[in-house]
Amino acid sequence: MFFASDNSGPVPQQVLDALAEANKGYAMAYGADALMDEVRNTLREIFEAPEASVHLVATGTAANSLALATLSQPWQTIFCSPVAHIHEDECNAPEFFTGGAKLTLVPGADKMTPEALRGAIEGEETRGVHGPQRGPVSITQVTERGGVYTLDELRALTDVTKSFGLPTHLDGARFANALVALGCTPAEMTWKAGIDAVSFGGTKNGLMGVEAVIFFDPRHAWEFELRRKRGAHLFSKHRYLSAQMSAYLRDGLWLELAQKANDNCAHLVAGLKEAGAEFLHAGPANMVFPSFPRATHRRLMAEGAVYHLWGAELDGGPDDEALPCRLVCDWSLAREEIDRFTKMVAQG
Amino acid sequence: MFFASDNSGPVPQQVLDALAEANKGYAMAYGADALMDEVRNTLREIFEAPEASVHLVATGTAANSLALATLSQPWQTIFCSPVAHIHEDECNAPEFFTGGAKLTLVPGADKMTPEALRGAIEGEETRGVHGPQRGPVSITQVTERGGVYTLDELRALTDVTKSFGLPTHLDGARFANALVALGCTPAEMTWKAGIDAVSFGGTKNGLMGVEAVIFFDPRHAWEFELRRKRGAHLFSKHRYLSAQMSAYLRDGLWLELAQKANDNCAHLVAGLKEAGAEFLHAGPANMVFPSFPRATHRRLMAEGAVYHLWGAELDGGPDDEALPCRLVCDWSLAREEIDRFTKMVAQG
Amino acid sequence: MFFASDNSGPVPQQVLDALAEANKGYAMAYGADALMDEVRNTLREIFEAPEASVHLVATGTAANSLALATLSQPWQTIFCSPVAHIHEDECNAPEFFTGGAKLTLVPGADKMTPEALRGAIEGEETRGVHGPQRGPVSITQVTERGGVYTLDELRALTDVTKSFGLPTHLDGARFANALVALGCTPAEMTWKAGIDAVSFGGTKNGLMGVEAVIFFDPRHAWEFELRRKRGAHLFSKHRYLSAQMSAYLRDGLWLELAQKANDNCAHLVAGLKEAGAEFLHAGPANMVFPSFPRATHRRLMAEGAVYHLWGAELDGGPDDEALPCRLVCDWSLAREEIDRFTKMVAQG
Amino acid sequence: MFFASDNSGPVPQQVLDALAEANKGYAMAYGADALMDEVRNTLREIFEAPEASVHLVATGTAANSLALATLSQPWQTIFCSPVAHIHEDECNAPEFFTGGAKLTLVPGADKMTPEALRGAIEGEETRGVHGPQRGPVSITQVTERGGVYTLDELRALTDVTKSFGLPTHLDGARFANALVALGCTPAEMTWKAGIDAVSFGGTKNGLMGVEAVIFFDPRHAWEFELRRKRGAHLFSKHRYLSAQMSAYLRDGLWLELAQKANDNCAHLVAGLKEAGAEFLHAGPANMVFPSFPRATHRRLMAEGAVYHLWGAELDGGPDDEALPCRLVCDWSLAREEIDRFTKMVAQG
Repeated sequence: MFFASDNSGPVPQQVLDALAEANKGYAMAYGADALMDEVRNTLREIFEAPEASVHLVATGTAANSLALATLSQPWQTIFCSPVAHIHEDECNAPEFFTGGAKLTLVPGADKMTPEALRGAIEGEETRGVHGPQRGPVSITQVTERGGVYTLDELRALTDVTKSFGLPTHLDGARFANALVALGCTPAEMTWKAGIDAVSFGGTKNGLMGVEAVIFFDPRHAWEFELRRKRGAHLFSKHRYLSAQMSAYLRDGLWLELAQKANDNCAHLVAGLKEAGAEFLHAGPANMVFPSFPRATHRRLMAEGAVYHLWGAELDGGPDDEALPCRLVCDWSLAREEIDRFTKMVAQG
Repeated sequence: MFFASDNSGPVPQQVLDALAEANKGYAMAYGADALMDEVRNTLREIFEAPEASVHLVATGTAANSLALATLSQPWQTIFCSPVAHIHEDECNAPEFFTGGAKLTLVPGADKMTPEALRGAIEGEETRGVHGPQRGPVSITQVTERGGVYTLDELRALTDVTKSFGLPTHLDGARFANALVALGCTPAEMTWKAGIDAVSFGGTKNGLMGVEAVIFFDPRHAWEFELRRKRGAHLFSKHRYLSAQMSAYLRDGLWLELAQKANDNCAHLVAGLKEAGAEFLHAGPANMVFPSFPRATHRRLMAEGAVYHLWGAELDGGPDDEALPCRLVCDWSLAREEIDRFTKMVAQG
Repeated sequence: MFFASDNSGPVPQQVLDALAEANKGYAMAYGADALMDEVRNTLREIFEAPEASVHLVATGTAANSLALATLSQPWQTIFCSPVAHIHEDECNAPEFFTGGAKLTLVPGADKMTPEALRGAIEGEETRGVHGPQRGPVSITQVTERGGVYTLDELRALTDVTKSFGLPTHLDGARFANALVALGCTPAEMTWKAGIDAVSFGGTKNGLMGVEAVIFFDPRHAWEFELRRKRGAHLFSKHRYLSAQMSAYLRDGLWLELAQKANDNCAHLVAGLKEAGAEFLHAGPANMVFPSFPRATHRRLMAEGAVYHLWGAELDGGPDDEALPCRLVCDWSLAREEIDRFTKMVAQG
Repeated sequence: MFFASDNSGPVPQQVLDALAEANKGYAMAYGADALMDEVRNTLREIFEAPEASVHLVATGTAANSLALATLSQPWQTIFCSPVAHIHEDECNAPEFFTGGAKLTLVPGADKMTPEALRGAIEGEETRGVHGPQRGPVSITQVTERGGVYTLDELRALTDVTKSFGLPTHLDGARFANALVALGCTPAEMTWKAGIDAVSFGGTKNGLMGVEAVIFFDPRHAWEFELRRKRGAHLFSKHRYLSAQMSAYLRDGLWLELAQKANDNCAHLVAGLKEAGAEFLHAGPANMVFPSFPRATHRRLMAEGAVYHLWGAELDGGPDDEALPCRLVCDWSLAREEIDRFTKMVAQG
């Protein structure tokens, strides 16, 4: 009953096998390994973007920060959701990697709306050199509350962005979960929807620590390479990143893993709804925010369930007070564990 | 015949096994995994430093840059060898992570001498607020030319450092190779010799990409944790770093691997000397710089030997011109390959 | 009829005289001039703070950014009003000087309330290393909308700040205007009210470009000196800054100028109220925000009045639409000009 | 007998008069003052560069750091003399403003030679992403030892620079002193000699604190404006900078002041040579480095002479030991004072 995060589960056997396979003999360092050529080609095919520049890093924060730094200037401001990972969970990494750019929080709850985004952008740069200048927009897909922007919603946002001549970054730490939820192609969810750069997450969907950064305009490639090295994010034994990403992309493993995670979540939601739970957010991907009575949380945790309460404290209030929590499903969850969990919730 | 670098070879089976073992079930993220507790305790024991703070990162540049940033201020200058990795091979990463500190190159060739270090330190900070202020000293052990500072040499350097009240960092990307060359304990090569912080390398000695940063004074711990996160070097699935380091330390594997690499190199040197080769540098660790005639290089490379010429070009000069090269041995090299190489050199 | 800003008027004759006087002969550079000793002593007396460290810079942005950088770390967030000058009008200077710290906007309109400040601080640092860490609070006095915090209001804010162990900075670009509005002592408005560092503005109140930064705890002095030099804000011919500040402080000139500016503004407000104007903000210092019909603005500007509309456009709407504007009075305004202005407003 | 620095003397009466004149009435802030238009036009005429972008700042360090930051990237290295002001006397300001670029010291004593510059540039960027990338070259004219590059020497350096496609910056803190020493035009000493950007100093030659930054390619203008604001170097009451620079340029005052300073220095050198002094450096501008016996220094200082010994200590050695010193002449020195000084030296 482990719903704490999709960064806490194991990697599939294919990834271990790929590491063992890649471990044979010698390989050129720093991304000059043959596996990286394969990864680059595969991602270009998957994204229908034969010119795209493709780079691997080991953490999502590195992917986001380096991509945004490449797209911005230190005197600009980056527009994002007020609950964006880049704002709340990266300890000022974007500010660090950009050399001191600002983040402007687009008013709203989780998903950005085109109107709010337009308002936020219009609100900046009316002051000549005095205010921060307008910089890139960063969209999180899956959102931090488990939501998924539709293709129309994405396009509506990038229409705004483009009307100001600004680039758009997609924080796709859960890219695959969003993709299978939408049932579209990677190209449709990115450059066809007006996205310029993508953090293509692997870590939360079954890798040990590998993310791709993809620029659809390859003129960003060299600057990104320099920023990656200067940020200490270029791996000497790069083949072990390549190997993981290669296994991830082979035979659609990445989509299969994401489908499993989303299905697990749908199964969980169905069970919880049957058990009468209410939801703060119940998006179509692999992360939902239901509420249970405090007493139920106590029993779940006592029975070994692991997850985070959401803006609530377990101690000190009435037993029947409804407390929200965050439940994240990864690909590896067993159905019996999910059922065991929902059964306990149903028991109240 | 792969002598290009010790970052190009495979990892030993124990590391793969440890990853597979660590892959079972769920683990808390971001360094709260149980394996990290084990790694921390083991490193404290190995270093006889029960209070030391221990942190894992994935690249040597991250280890160096984050350690130095923690020990310095942006208005200071860091003293190092003119051929230090932090100066020549990290694309300004130390300048980036420190927020703009300077590197002062201690005059000399590779190893720093106490006299040159003292002169360099005295040369700074005679200008009040106008010049950069004196900051930490960084010593590379094994040096970039394959040299190993003796304990007396290390102590002579840190005596200088301490006389100015400055901290000392040890860039130990090849820590184990130096240690087995000296035949001393980790404590003797570090805090007993006046070292304050260590980049304890694993990657060049058999790991996929794991380095420990160790501060003997634990008051640096929290700042380092924040800098690591802000630098995007905190792994969510941290257990896969812990697992590698744990396997590395278990039953002295790290020392065994380093001994193999050094022995391979000694075997190579013996063969080359027998073959009549001259050496620019022939230190006691796993990296040497011999010279061969251009024609010999041509034949070696034609036969599949992989290594780097050192400040020389293969094309365009006389066949009998002696060209230096860098040969690095890792633990995995087969003796037959080494013998095959030296035999070819002997053939002229 | 010049109400555009208090940075557009002349300096008083005493400042010119002081520059001429200071111009005689030679003076030690970089703040070692004798006039700086006098300035330091005088400010310590005025603030009843014999240990305070005192530094001069030439711009308000330098004063704020350098003071905040000295009080914070790059992984922290600085709490301020959503309309604070440091957020809206300094082109990311605080982010630059702090090395990438964040600004957290305390919800509200202009003045911060203790409740909102407490909520904002509590909202940060619940995420371990993941979120930005709590840093200093910056209070603007006079506020950007012309408001003045009472001593009780200041104390209520610093009580919150101190309860979290955080330092408090006062952006006093219009320090003197606030002081004479409150009728209190500099000590009462600063360290007695819990303030740790002050940007003590001179430029908007009659100097060419001089601000003092004052830390009540002198342990910040040396770091500030280094940051000032590194930020290129240390003047070689420092005596010309000292001379201005010296003249400013002599015989209460600074208070006299601020009183004139505030009196001018009170006279303006009285006239405008008589003329029937409504006010968005009509604080007690030297800056107010009245509304006039568009047609009135047109006539005022045609007659040579200079000021800024406030979030409104002169062109394109109905003549009788009320448009807000910002009017700032400096010490040098002639009463006849103010009367001419209000008379035109009264004429509708 | 004040030879400590050319930043310690007074400003000429014309500058005070210009400030008084500029002080009348109201002026638009932040560089939109009418005087700045005049300054811009005059500098474009003087430099025969009608498209040049012209900006004012208050310190030489700001001029250099902002200009170099505009010409470089954080992953690059800036080439300069080992005794350049930007390296030795700006407390890491270039590293700060560039966001962490490196400075590569071109081997040599003071003036850079084309050969040494070529060698230094060739030494960088042979390592792909691993080393710092090649960035701008900064030439100091007058050099830190009082030397003046001839036009041929300048051109030889910029020929090297251009052959690598790199931009060249001229640190002209003593621009006018060099110009009158060479007897050429500003255009000849800058863009006609291959210079791309100039720090055009005013402070050391008679202003209170004003330097112009000039880019001959105006596409740098907007970035510089943003960097200046973000660096807190944009003055609100900008007219007081403009007024000083305007007076400086009017009727050739700037050339007249520099000629006086150089003539004073030539008179000093003639007197010292007659008195039998030896020289470390005796360049054609306003700064020389003679040696006198320790006892002579003692007597000079006792009589009130103010200057800096150069790498020597007054105390503790034999009376007849020759100790070098630095003597700087500004425009305001009285000939009698110079004669008094040389007479004392002659007395031994």
